Amino acid sequence: MQLRRSDVVTGALTLLDTEGLDGLTMRKLGAHLGVQAGGIYWHFANKQALLAAMADRIIAPVATEPLPDAPWDAQLTELGQRLRHALLKHRDGARVVAGTYVIEPNTIRAGEQALRILITAGFPADRAAWVMAPVFYYVLGHTIEEQAQHAEGDWTERNSDEADPALQTAMTSMLSAAPSDRFTFGLNLFLDGLRHRLPHSPA
Amino acid sequence: MQLRRSDVVTGALTLLDTEGLDGLTMRKLGAHLGVQAGGIYWHFANKQALLAAMADRIIAPVATEPLPDAPWDAQLTELGQRLRHALLKHRDGARVVAGTYVIEPNTIRAGEQALRILITAGFPADRAAWVMAPVFYYVLGHTIEEQAQHAEGDWTERNSDEADPALQTAMTSMLSAAPSDRFTFGLNLFLDGLRHRLPHSPA
Repeated sequence: MQLRRSDVVTGALTLLDTEGLDGLTMRKLGAHLGVQAGGIYWHFANKQALLAAMADRIIAPVATEPLPDAPWDAQLTELGQRLRHALLKHRDGARVVAGTYVIEPNTIRAGEQALRILITAGFPADRAAWVMAPVFYYVLGHTIEEQAQHAEGDWTERNSDEADPALQTAMTSMLSAAPSDRFTFGLNLFLDGLRHRLPHSPA
Repeated sequence: MQLRRSDVVTGALTLLDTEGLDGLTMRKLGAHLGVQAGGIYWHFANKQALLAAMADRIIAPVATEPLPDAPWDAQLTELGQRLRHALLKHRDGARVVAGTYVIEPNTIRAGEQALRILITAGFPADRAAWVMAPVFYYVLGHTIEEQAQHAEGDWTERNSDEADPALQTAMTSMLSAAPSDRFTFGLNLFLDGLRHRLPHSPA
């Protein structure tokens, strides 16, 4: 029975969930799949190539489900929410995607969806990617920290006696909130900026 | 001659620059410092603790230089720019900081600076951190991708025949620009969102 490329990716994602990104090695993956390392390298020249394929599989749900018929900002919000959910589905999912600068089919498709939304909304083609990229970076940055925070405990436990009261209020108010609420708040901040950049926007 | 905690961090950052985050091991660090692994573990219980100390050292310049006397949005922009520069100073600097969810002195000090700027500008204390966090996440996400892109080559080389013309224009326009320009553009998008959230803003 031949080892298929997609089986390697599936196995690597299973191993990612149990071992985390730092524990994922080609050796352990071989053992998990019951093959020699050579069987993996036949499909992926190195770990970086495997990580790119894993990242692209993680992003697949963002790229393939059709978007609701809605205004451009609602569609972009939906894409951002889907991306966060997709990253959260796997342990260290955001770190896998962020570290690989992925140029794979689903990643390109997801990016194209976002660009089409922005161009249709009225952003000039030569500005659309400038506007899309920061949203993508925000989602990555938020989700990396969300997954790291989960692993490492939280700020309030570790610093309750250090900060001054106003700063304490500020941090506690944020860190006691659901990550999904904080995520949506930040995404919306960005979209506020976009709405005001849109030419002929009804402001 | 006793190995000091700060020497371990300095050595780890030197090694980071030559080996990258994936190549940084406690074993290599011991060899680099000319000590047994035990000498390192005396200061850091595990690699995660070492990475947190490295992240905090990377962020130090953001926390320690005083800010210019300027409007709140210019000060926040300055903090964001400083953070990007600090992350870029070391190979994989952004990944080190993003992966560790750092709760160390310089990181806290830098966060407190940002919170004070926002609170002084008029954001309520219980919203200031909600507003600060997305800016931080954007800087992290941008800089991780900026450092990964540098390592992996660029999109235009690899996809010139795949995308449709408008999307091609969009991507080329962004990717041919200087990362610092794209960074500033995205930071400003965020600040536009913030300016419109500020109570009693003269908008």
